[in-house]
Amino acid sequence: MDEREALARLSETLPGAGDDCAVVGDRVLTTDMLHETTDFPTGVDRYTAGWRAVGASLSDVAAMGADADAAVAAYGAPRFDPDDVDDFVRGARAVCEAVDAEYVGGDLDRHDEFTVATTALGSTDDPVGRGGAERGDAVCVTGAFGRSAAAIRAFETGDAERGTELFRFTPRVAAGVALRPYATAMMDSSDGLARSLHQLVEASDVADLGMDIIESYVPVDDAVREAFDDPEERRSAALYFGEDFELVFTLASDDVEAARAASPTLITVIGNVTWDGVRMDGEPLPDRGYGHGEE
Amino acid sequence: MDEREALARLSETLPGAGDDCAVVGDRVLTTDMLHETTDFPTGVDRYTAGWRAVGASLSDVAAMGADADAAVAAYGAPRFDPDDVDDFVRGARAVCEAVDAEYVGGDLDRHDEFTVATTALGSTDDPVGRGGAERGDAVCVTGAFGRSAAAIRAFETGDAERGTELFRFTPRVAAGVALRPYATAMMDSSDGLARSLHQLVEASDVADLGMDIIESYVPVDDAVREAFDDPEERRSAALYFGEDFELVFTLASDDVEAARAASPTLITVIGNVTWDGVRMDGEPLPDRGYGHGEE
Repeated sequence: MDEREALARLSETLPGAGDDCAVVGDRVLTTDMLHETTDFPTGVDRYTAGWRAVGASLSDVAAMGADADAAVAAYGAPRFDPDDVDDFVRGARAVCEAVDAEYVGGDLDRHDEFTVATTALGSTDDPVGRGGAERGDAVCVTGAFGRSAAAIRAFETGDAERGTELFRFTPRVAAGVALRPYATAMMDSSDGLARSLHQLVEASDVADLGMDIIESYVPVDDAVREAFDDPEERRSAALYFGEDFELVFTLASDDVEAARAASPTLITVIGNVTWDGVRMDGEPLPDRGYGHGEE
Repeated sequence: MDEREALARLSETLPGAGDDCAVVGDRVLTTDMLHETTDFPTGVDRYTAGWRAVGASLSDVAAMGADADAAVAAYGAPRFDPDDVDDFVRGARAVCEAVDAEYVGGDLDRHDEFTVATTALGSTDDPVGRGGAERGDAVCVTGAFGRSAAAIRAFETGDAERGTELFRFTPRVAAGVALRPYATAMMDSSDGLARSLHQLVEASDVADLGMDIIESYVPVDDAVREAFDDPEERRSAALYFGEDFELVFTLASDDVEAARAASPTLITVIGNVTWDGVRMDGEPLPDRGYGHGEE
């Protein structure tokens, strides 16, 4: 059983699973586990690890259109080096401050492998789920894609300074809140843009839903052009690599201008909700992306 | 740096750290990481692991005197065996149901070592912290001690059925809520009774605070007598082993009867809040207990 099947099995048995957060009354709650071998390449300092791990959970709060209230982290490591712990907490606090949330503490655990589990709590009376896309809606994204792929490349080439810089992202909480009145469906792009589009289509109750995406509309981060010369690598970085933590959402075409005006983060229309699966420039877009254990 | 020093360092820099949960408005939030080598001995099935891991976080909610709202878990394992995941979720749901909380989902992560991070969310306008003990208060506990030490012994002797039965505990949420109007300070006994008493003394703002505990008053679980013949082993199981998830709390002596009447779980007075450190039967009680990386 791979991670998607296992997650699908979890959703079958759990109320509220399947969205980026669980909804608990007027709160949203999400948890993520990251660890060294798959999530923190050599060169990621503890400050960046704290920032990124807590940021990943805050991104899930953003994807529900919720305000971010607080985050906690469980920190597992072979040793508790004072500077490491301090750096991790500083990074965790910094990303919380960036989205007006409070980092309120955590747990420590002696663990053979550096492992972090983060949880974020948010508030909204009207969360945006993944399931509301309707035919005719515009398909939109915040920001630009491929930043994390470029970061990994930087780490591979030994440029840890550039890698960590690219790894520290601002969770799109303010955009998510601004988009809440408009978005019909929303999620974050942590599994990659292509997979996110497929997931929005699958989550919809509408039969035979699809999307037509125009590749040239997809905003690609400048870092991708720096990091990759090969056009195929650039394409893969933007469409499939994932871990970029942008918002991918649908909204009525008539609302695009209002949403754009409301959002503090750039919004780009990349296509439309149509029929029968996800296509890019008329060709089926593979449902391929980032998944632990699949690569 | 051992775990206590590292946690102390976390508390220095974090508002609200040091209690069993962080307080976020009218909510309380807590997270814990458990993993195979230190927390799940051979013989612990996934149902029991789910129960116990989520229960540990719900116990922290109980320790704040809060109602338990919801829990999530991040599940890391080398493989996602369908039955394992199902069993884990069933156990997690069962312990949530036992305290009227909702298990609302989680994350999966491919991990070399079975590792679980759980988070629980609770509600209260008036959380009970660790820091309110005053001289003259009674020192009380819920339930009985030594159950987890007896469970570990059962696992060691190959009696996994008895071990798992003892490992599945009911978090004291109902008692915590009932005690909220009375308790001046409260925490759970996950680090052991002796250490919990020391922690309540240390957390107090009152100078030269102490406790006088009467050993024969400490309720010892029947399972301890089953599991250990040696009186010293029995004593250690009850006082130092920890991981029992009972509530340890102080309250005004005049409130003992009312608290006892309100609590659905047996409450035992084991001593009084006095001067100058924790003593048991007149002798200093070592500040020794359960700590990852210290044993």
